[in-house]
Amino acid sequence: MPNRTIRGVFVPALTPFAADLAVDGARFLAHCDWLLDQGATGLAVFGTTSEANSLSGAERMQLLDHLVEHGIAAKLLMPGTGCCALPDTVALTRHAVNRGAMGVLLLPPFYYKNVSDDGVYASIAEVVQRVADPRLRIYLYHIPAMAGVGFSLSVIERLLKDSADTVVGIKDSSGDWKNTEAMLRTFPGFEVFPGSETWLLDALRLGGVGCISATANVNVAAMRALIDARDSPDASAMQAQLSAIRAAIQKYPLVSANKAILAQALGDPAWNTVRPPLTAMSSDAAGSLLNALASLHFPLPAPRQPLATA
Amino acid sequence: MPNRTIRGVFVPALTPFAADLAVDGARFLAHCDWLLDQGATGLAVFGTTSEANSLSGAERMQLLDHLVEHGIAAKLLMPGTGCCALPDTVALTRHAVNRGAMGVLLLPPFYYKNVSDDGVYASIAEVVQRVADPRLRIYLYHIPAMAGVGFSLSVIERLLKDSADTVVGIKDSSGDWKNTEAMLRTFPGFEVFPGSETWLLDALRLGGVGCISATANVNVAAMRALIDARDSPDASAMQAQLSAIRAAIQKYPLVSANKAILAQALGDPAWNTVRPPLTAMSSDAAGSLLNALASLHFPLPAPRQPLATA
Repeated sequence: MPNRTIRGVFVPALTPFAADLAVDGARFLAHCDWLLDQGATGLAVFGTTSEANSLSGAERMQLLDHLVEHGIAAKLLMPGTGCCALPDTVALTRHAVNRGAMGVLLLPPFYYKNVSDDGVYASIAEVVQRVADPRLRIYLYHIPAMAGVGFSLSVIERLLKDSADTVVGIKDSSGDWKNTEAMLRTFPGFEVFPGSETWLLDALRLGGVGCISATANVNVAAMRALIDARDSPDASAMQAQLSAIRAAIQKYPLVSANKAILAQALGDPAWNTVRPPLTAMSSDAAGSLLNALASLHFPLPAPRQPLATA
Repeated sequence: MPNRTIRGVFVPALTPFAADLAVDGARFLAHCDWLLDQGATGLAVFGTTSEANSLSGAERMQLLDHLVEHGIAAKLLMPGTGCCALPDTVALTRHAVNRGAMGVLLLPPFYYKNVSDDGVYASIAEVVQRVADPRLRIYLYHIPAMAGVGFSLSVIERLLKDSADTVVGIKDSSGDWKNTEAMLRTFPGFEVFPGSETWLLDALRLGGVGCISATANVNVAAMRALIDARDSPDASAMQAQLSAIRAAIQKYPLVSANKAILAQALGDPAWNTVRPPLTAMSSDAAGSLLNALASLHFPLPAPRQPLATA
């Protein structure tokens, strides 16, 4: 197996909204600070769990600026910048590079379905050519169940052939370990993050570099602990506990479930707010989830500091 | 059956691109002029066939301005304005209303999948509330195979209960006649456009108001002729010919197939250009399509006038 550098846990940080659905920059910053304090290696802000696709481009850029201007190191940030339209993707990617982000997490254009490998390849190659910046590092974002379009091994191979200095990794949210394993075995040196901590230990043992997981919003410390203890005798038990907690949470829609856990942990019901088309968890469903987590001895995350109000 | 006013054929006008993938406003205007000249009742610009989801919001607004400023009546335009992010949808919708568009064609937010009816309902209700303009007329855009999210009869019923003056119709691109029929029978007065001319006559006979079809880009005159002759003895034969041509074209990806037909008809290969993730037709595939159309005695559309160069 290739001896890749461990990257760690990147968190697709939840995006909080005010009651009028405006982005709540103060709560977002506090959450990001807390995630880093809890052991996050970095923040994959503007992912699926961040409701990034419910944010305008201007909102994403302003939020990124807000984090960096308030002391979060840009080199810890891997913002999602992949949109349906090439000009939008290029604009967000350029902005992230100019801000000093360590990389971008790139969805393929996801409106048109049944597109060819040639089309998916071209959509990424155009971004590389148009951004045209040696600082650019692209992590592909493979989440076919949501995007309806994914990255085949053949597309990855072509991108690595042409742009290996730029296209450096992937988040595999296929939910299919065999796919993650195939990526790890086929592309030595390529940074593969499973999109769920369920496969964190398996991936690390095959040369995976960490994970990028929705539930890291509420359980990042345990993920980080497993990475640090990956060679210890405790690793398997730690993995089993991580997997059990993940399974309990992902019985529910992940965005609203993570927000409900944070709302309860912080005593801050504002965290429940989501933008349509998502809907907040009912209090019944949230109660069931919290009971299930309590029965797994899951400690509700504690806030780092009193939250600033919006 | 309700006695609804016939609207006619709205064309999701193809968007031409220059070799560098920039929008080609001059070719777009010429195409739109020609469509209206051929009998289009109106233009559903920025639909799926228009590659609207491959355009930025700014590009869509500039193109709409370009059409109106060059003499295309805004009351003939039904631009697509539905994006993944509520702020984008609101901005495009406001712009269309302020320009005087007769309505907007609204995709639901289409990134997140398995969303609830409550979430889809809220995504439209928020647009109505935020645009807050009595001139706003919304046509829902139901295309579940592409968007992955659609409008159930139950969501339509709720929207009509709350906002019947604003939510006035739907384009049903489900490809399922039973669904179109259910909409026609369930919602008297609601303007239902099948998304394919294959069901044009069936829909007209049940109170449908016309059609909005990808292939109207190359065959609008025949669709308009059928609407005008819907009560004549020739109507069934005209429908059969329309359906045969549609079937021949939709064996191929609709955007690139329509572009290939236009490129051939106009002797203007620039029309073949698409933005990724779509890909242009191969010349072999285009040849097969054109042969199939020739065997159906399909007349290639003639341009209205020499095209201005970009």
